[in-house]
Amino acid sequence: MDDALSEFGRRDWETETDLESVRFAMVGLGWWTREEAIPATEQSDRCETTVVVSGHHDKAEDVAEIADDTATAITYDEFHDGAATDEYDAVYVATPNAKHLEFAESAAEFGKAVLCEKPMEATPERARRMVETCEDADVTLMVAYRMQTEPAVRRARELVREGAIGDPMVVHGSMSQDLLEMIPNPDQWRLNPDLSGPGTSVMDLGIYPLNTARFVLDADPTAVSSFARSTGDAFSDVPDEVATFQVEFDDGTLAACSASQNASQSSHLKVVGTEGEVSVEPAFFDRQNRKFALEVDGNRMSLDYKQVDQMLEEFDYFAHQLRTDGDIYPDGRHGLADIEAMAAIYESADEGSVMEL
Amino acid sequence: MDDALSEFGRRDWETETDLESVRFAMVGLGWWTREEAIPATEQSDRCETTVVVSGHHDKAEDVAEIADDTATAITYDEFHDGAATDEYDAVYVATPNAKHLEFAESAAEFGKAVLCEKPMEATPERARRMVETCEDADVTLMVAYRMQTEPAVRRARELVREGAIGDPMVVHGSMSQDLLEMIPNPDQWRLNPDLSGPGTSVMDLGIYPLNTARFVLDADPTAVSSFARSTGDAFSDVPDEVATFQVEFDDGTLAACSASQNASQSSHLKVVGTEGEVSVEPAFFDRQNRKFALEVDGNRMSLDYKQVDQMLEEFDYFAHQLRTDGDIYPDGRHGLADIEAMAAIYESADEGSVMEL
Repeated sequence: MDDALSEFGRRDWETETDLESVRFAMVGLGWWTREEAIPATEQSDRCETTVVVSGHHDKAEDVAEIADDTATAITYDEFHDGAATDEYDAVYVATPNAKHLEFAESAAEFGKAVLCEKPMEATPERARRMVETCEDADVTLMVAYRMQTEPAVRRARELVREGAIGDPMVVHGSMSQDLLEMIPNPDQWRLNPDLSGPGTSVMDLGIYPLNTARFVLDADPTAVSSFARSTGDAFSDVPDEVATFQVEFDDGTLAACSASQNASQSSHLKVVGTEGEVSVEPAFFDRQNRKFALEVDGNRMSLDYKQVDQMLEEFDYFAHQLRTDGDIYPDGRHGLADIEAMAAIYESADEGSVMEL
Repeated sequence: MDDALSEFGRRDWETETDLESVRFAMVGLGWWTREEAIPATEQSDRCETTVVVSGHHDKAEDVAEIADDTATAITYDEFHDGAATDEYDAVYVATPNAKHLEFAESAAEFGKAVLCEKPMEATPERARRMVETCEDADVTLMVAYRMQTEPAVRRARELVREGAIGDPMVVHGSMSQDLLEMIPNPDQWRLNPDLSGPGTSVMDLGIYPLNTARFVLDADPTAVSSFARSTGDAFSDVPDEVATFQVEFDDGTLAACSASQNASQSSHLKVVGTEGEVSVEPAFFDRQNRKFALEVDGNRMSLDYKQVDQMLEEFDYFAHQLRTDGDIYPDGRHGLADIEAMAAIYESADEGSVMEL
């Protein structure tokens, strides 16, 4: 039992610690980049923010001042023109979804590795172009699934793989937040299909239970179906103020998921197998105290574990794999599968029928 | 806060306590009747088991000896022939699903009130016949939804009605158990479509999240869709060794639900609204310590409350409404709506399309 505790947060992916630092160009300087991503690189021994890239030069300059490393501030246009390419090794892309591709394309052109926020793009076509562009240029592409380097999720995955809960049978996963309380402006990119993709709640939140279930089960979706509705004025351009979706996985497991940008902050992930269950709740918000539980034979272990900085784990994983030439688990093709599944989820909600993948 | 605790278990439905006792004929003497229902009537001040009815006279005699009240033992045939009608006021029907109707019909013929286990019958047609038969005979019909008199569920319903969590947006509900561990015989009625209805997991377990969501939301389903699969040998005659189903309610709330007869015992109910969430977990097993939680504005109250005997609450509610001529909330038409929704869930899983109700 004490090993379970002392080893809970271990970086099982880490084989080397003495590695050359990776210098990042941070593209898209919204609150997530400023308050989560840049601070993570500052905490990291193997990552640093050396370039910051924004649509507006002034904003880039302001953010450059926040960053410790006397970063170079450039605009999107300057980035695409190849400015400061000597000053970074990799690009972190955190723009609106539908703008990820263009930055990945420029990065690939410059031979820079890409860490792209999820969802990786707005449509399967664009996501596929990103994959192919990076493959053709032979640059590393990782999709920024911070749950995949979250200890609770990695431990859940190990337990499932080892058979601790028997054969997985069913997953429940949810994520909701009050988007308009967080960003009190209906004119924002997450509510604009030109920038977000086919919708908001599934694209931005539903991807967490979807991808985390895939990762924990080590399985991929074979069919989806969905209900979605929007009634609030702010959600008139997107179909999914709230959505539920079901997923059938290639190992036979079924998942019941939900997502909402207009509900109280809430999240959970629960995997029930023939012999037990493993759960993380709250699950998906990085500034909440996530809790882990395992139940087998009616005996339940609940863990309040030392929370990690999820963005630090994610950036360190990316840098580690890059510097050790290791495989990236959430690579472009992995991310593309989610984009395809989510496109099918939206299509299912629209058409009222199951979509096979 | 102290009121919230001291009042948590209150019987808000109870207006009178000094009432004439209701004498029950217990029909179908499986373990549930023997270990849950009859003991509840023994504990109750206003219910008693006076007649026990089984397919086999010897079994009825054996169970009669268990019951405190020197109950009269009769067979199904004797029941239908009108035996011992002077000795009971109401009938509790706990046979396999597809046999409920015939006992309700006889009870109606004898002018006896009916407390019928859920699901009330195997098909909508048979459930509708039960409703109409009881209405025509002017006998009370209640479907035995023990969650509706469970304090945690009643408090959740009150909170939702009062707006404590804002507008309900999404519900998660699950129930699973290892049926073949509980009853180690693949040749059992719950796995036989002639007796169970179109399937096993949704009919026997999925009805809990479905009906409890209806009750807590005070809303009814307008559309459903479902995934179901059976791969285990014991489940070859039913489609749903495991199933997920989504429900759209007439108030706009969506629900993501699951049920499995071949998974570890697990259950939860969570209702997330625009302002907060209310949950019960574990939720649906009567011999588990259910837990209640309410979260509003990031403040979370978890209640370990004094567990009630759910069957005692249910029997006392039925008897109270019967003796006070009160309305029965889970009446025949209420139960029929679940049977119709579940028939649509099975049809959806079979056809791969949304079913409107």
